[in-house]
Formats: sequence, structure tokens, C-alpha cells
Amino acid sequence: MSTAPFLALVQDALAEVETLLAAQADGYHPDLQAALHHLLAAGGKRIRPTVALLMGRLLGAPHPRLVILAAALEMLHTATLVHDDLIDGALLRRGMPTLNAQWSPAATVLTGDFLFARAALLATNTESLHVMRLFTQTLAVIVDGEIRQLFEGGAYTALPQYEHRIYAKTASMFELATAAAASLAGAQPDDAVYETARRYGYHIGMAFQIVDDILDYQGDSQQVGKPVGNDLRNGLITLPALAYMQQHHDDPDLQAVLQNGGLYDAQRLEALVQRIRQSGALQTAAQAAREHVDAALAALTHLPPGPEREALAALARYVVDRDF
Amino acid sequence: MSTAPFLALVQDALAEVETLLAAQADGYHPDLQAALHHLLAAGGKRIRPTVALLMGRLLGAPHPRLVILAAALEMLHTATLVHDDLIDGALLRRGMPTLNAQWSPAATVLTGDFLFARAALLATNTESLHVMRLFTQTLAVIVDGEIRQLFEGGAYTALPQYEHRIYAKTASMFELATAAAASLAGAQPDDAVYETARRYGYHIGMAFQIVDDILDYQGDSQQVGKPVGNDLRNGLITLPALAYMQQHHDDPDLQAVLQNGGLYDAQRLEALVQRIRQSGALQTAAQAAREHVDAALAALTHLPPGPEREALAALARYVVDRDF
Repeated sequence: MSTAPFLALVQDALAEVETLLAAQADGYHPDLQAALHHLLAAGGKRIRPTVALLMGRLLGAPHPRLVILAAALEMLHTATLVHDDLIDGALLRRGMPTLNAQWSPAATVLTGDFLFARAALLATNTESLHVMRLFTQTLAVIVDGEIRQLFEGGAYTALPQYEHRIYAKTASMFELATAAAASLAGAQPDDAVYETARRYGYHIGMAFQIVDDILDYQGDSQQVGKPVGNDLRNGLITLPALAYMQQHHDDPDLQAVLQNGGLYDAQRLEALVQRIRQSGALQTAAQAAREHVDAALAALTHLPPGPEREALAALARYVVDRDF
Repeated sequence: MSTAPFLALVQDALAEVETLLAAQADGYHPDLQAALHHLLAAGGKRIRPTVALLMGRLLGAPHPRLVILAAALEMLHTATLVHDDLIDGALLRRGMPTLNAQWSPAATVLTGDFLFARAALLATNTESLHVMRLFTQTLAVIVDGEIRQLFEGGAYTALPQYEHRIYAKTASMFELATAAAASLAGAQPDDAVYETARRYGYHIGMAFQIVDDILDYQGDSQQVGKPVGNDLRNGLITLPALAYMQQHHDDPDLQAVLQNGGLYDAQRLEALVQRIRQSGALQTAAQAAREHVDAALAALTHLPPGPEREALAALARYVVDRDF
């Protein structure tokens, strides 16, 4: 993705974002600084900052505040990952050891808290109360989604529950990225341009997570950074399994996942993953992702033309084309 | 404290604060609502909201935004307690089971995160970017202090380290309460009234924590809610031990605390606590607390006279008189 054409427009701005992110632990405890640098070095695609930068430039947001917004988004995303990894007990993310794998739970909780504080401070530095409010509302949505998953599990049999979960987990932050960028450009929440920008963010976020969920069924673990079938193993029913369930509701292994909240027999799991792959369910899920991308592209047609709009269109298409 | 005279002035406003706090989980997951109600029912003195309400009224802050600020302060305080209890493994707080004692670590982390999000949203609802910035800076100070304590331990031998720790842990939030209240009343950070309000908050916060640290040496556990000598047992050197150390640096049990980061032999611990109590160290520490109260009272003389100022003076005196 580092050579994706839509990145060229914002490459300089992304470098400013990196500098701002790296400075967030300056003056604090050396271990906090080391943790922040470890987390930032783990990389990630900076796709949320990229989306915000492109949308903000398209709509005329002032550059310095837009860079701060982009950094705030990546910092909030990183903060949620730190606590997520702790909760999941994950030891690797993006192929690098998680904080959780190296530090005590106490240190990991506090580092996540520190990153939340710095994300909030960056959001405040956009000098926009509306942006600040969007940030805090989004954080509440994300955390509420995680609490629902923790208490209710992820063994859904209905599409709306799945859609709500991926909205809370992923799309809400893309929506935040584009709505906040529109706000910095002066758009009010009841302006058409604001709603259009928000909708673009929502749809690419939904597509992004659906594709992530498909990759769990097909990528090799090198590429995705976790073993294939991981979601199903942990009792998480995503769109491919939901699509398969439409035709094969009685599949005994799928029923076992639903009843036991997971499937830990490696052979049965692999066979179930194979049946789902061969059923056409991944294509059905990919079609749903494409529909979200089409809705995102349709939203773009209501925004001003120009290289940023072209880049946002390319980015939307990239979301579904990246790995299948 | 529920009959303390300085509360009468703000009793109605405190009731509004309670209502606002209780509503913060409305519409979210039922378990989140239950957790919030449990945490709020555990009570606490609402001393931070009281300080903010009195200072804000004294300086003429608009009532609705002041109530929101007071709720935001209590919510932030509660959020930090939830993660603190998790980190300390505490099972009781204010005589009630902690969330940590009843829930999984994952649920506790997420509930704390949710409370942070709601504290930030309340702070945003004060409609003041300056207040918002104070909140996020204070959160970073608090978390940095906890991280320092986690990595470096609390076995200080120098006063400045102790002072920094209690500033981060306690005084920073009192300072936030009064500075934010002054800000809502229209004072700018370089106005004398703003600086005076901030200074009052700083000094009562420092006095409050010093008194808490003294109580750890003398209260019965019923009253303080934790066993006497708890800090020393866990290797935390507070002002009484620092004062004792001035005269008795060679005390072998104190040296054991410093070297081992704690003292788990109950008899040796009790004997050391007795020696510290009989050395006059608690009086020395109480004198330091009184000096902070005097500085707080001196600051008040620069603020407008009136019943709120009298109440703030009574509150400052209460901080040191409450239990000895």
C-alpha cells in the first residue's frame, strides 16, 4: 500500500502526522516513550489519517488543523488496539509483539489510557468543539461495541447484529474521519456536504471490515498476521459464515460454533472453513463489500471534483481489491 | 461530611450532578448501566464536584455548564479509580466491592474506557475548548504518575518525588476543578483570578492527599476502608515515613521497605508503624498539610467575598480537620 497512487497527494502531510504522533510522549516517562515508539513502528497503513487528509483537502479544511485531526485519529485507533490486544490476550499484531506480550497488564492498561489522553488532547487541538464531540461519541460507540461482544459473544445468526458490531468496531472511526474533516472545512452537520462526507466514511469503513472478515477465511497467516479461521475458532460469526448459514443452517460444525462459542478441534475447523470457502459464501460477502464501496463512490459524486476526489475513489476501490 | 455546612450552598446543584452522572450509560449495554450505577452508589464525597461548584458560583460561571463540569470531574475521577483498582488488584473501595472484584479484567478495562469516553463527552459539553484541554492534560498527568509509580515504585527518599506523585495522583484534579470553574466564569489563564483559583485547588489537593497518607498510619480500617500501614507494606513511602526518615534513616525495618519495595512481616510492620507514630512524624506531616491549607486560604483572600468564599474556606479547613 505504500506505493498506492492515492497516497502521493498526502505523502508530505502523512510525514507531518508521523512527527506529531512520535512527539506525543515527549517529556513523559521513558517507558511511555518507548512504548509509543514501539506501537508506531509497528506501522499499520495509516488509512484513517489518509482518508481524513484527502477529505479535508477536498473540502478546503485548513492544513495545520487537518494534520492534527489525522494524528488524533491514528492515536485513538492505536489506543483502542492496545486495550483490545490486552482483552484478547493477543501476542502479535501486524507481525510485531503486542505491548501485552511484553508488558504487565497494568502497564498495558495505563499505556492505553495515556494514548486515549493524548488522542483527546490532539482532538482538542483541532480547536473544534464539534470535532471533539465526534471523537468522544465515537469512543463510546467503540467501547460499547466491545462490551457487547464481551458479554454477548459474537455468535450471531442475524445480519443486523453483525452490521452493528462492524460499525462499532471499524466503520464508526472512518465515519469520524470524514465527518470531522468536513467539519474542519466549515461544513455543519445539517449541510449536505457534511452528510455526504460522513456517508463516504461510513461505507468504506463497513467495506473495510467485511473485507478483513473475508481475509480471515482465505489469506495465509503471513499476510493477514493471524491464522486462517481465527474468527470461527473464537466463536465470531462474520459475514462469510452468515452467508453460508443461509444455505447450510444445519451444518453440525457451524452449530457447534454457535452452541459452544467456538470450535477448537483443528481438523473440524479446517474442514468447516473449506466448506464455507467452497460454498460461494466469500463471493456473497465480497459482493456486500462492493455494494458499500459503490455507495461510497456514489456519495463522492456529490462532492467537488479534483485530484483528492479521484484519490478517495481509488482508495474506496482499493479497500475491496487489496487482497482478492 | 453530608452535613458539612459548605455543602448546603450547592446541595441542589449536587443533586443535578447526580442525575447527570446516572444518565451517562442510558442507551448503552445493560451491563454498562449496572456497572455505572454500582460505581456511583459506592458514593464517595463528591468533593471535586463541590469544589468546582463553589468556585464557579463565586466567580459567576453559568449554572448549567458548571453542573456539567462538576459531573465531568466526578466521572473522570471514577474512571481513574476503576483502572486503579484493576492495577492494584483491590477488591474493596469505599467499603463496597470494586468492579474488579466482580468482573473480569477485560470488562473492567472496557468499563473504565467507557467512563473516560463519557467524562470526555461531558467535558466537551461545557462548550469550552480550554476546559477540554485542561481535562485531557490532567488525564495525561494522572496516567504518567501511575506509570512512574508502576515502573519506579514508591520507595522515595526525597520530598520532590513524593510531591510530584501526590500532585499527579490527587492535586492535579483539584487544580483542574478550580481552574476549569474559573475558565467557565470567563477568566483567562493569564488573569490573576484564574491563577488564584488554580492555586486554591492545587493547595487543597496537596493537603487532601497528605491527610490521606497520614490516615493510613492512624485510622482504624473501618474508617479509612483499608488496613493501617498499607502504604508501607506495599513499599510506598509517604510524608510520615519521609519525616521519620529525617531522624531515623538507619531504622532497619525502614531500610527493608526501601530495599525490598515492601514489608510483609506483619509484626515488623506494626512495630515500624508504631515507631513512626511515636516519633512525631505524623505531626510534621500534618503541619505540611496545614501549610497547604494556609496557602489555599491566602489565595481565597484575593477572590470576591461572599458565602461561596466562606464555604471554600470551610472546605479547606475541613480537609485537614476531618479526622485528626
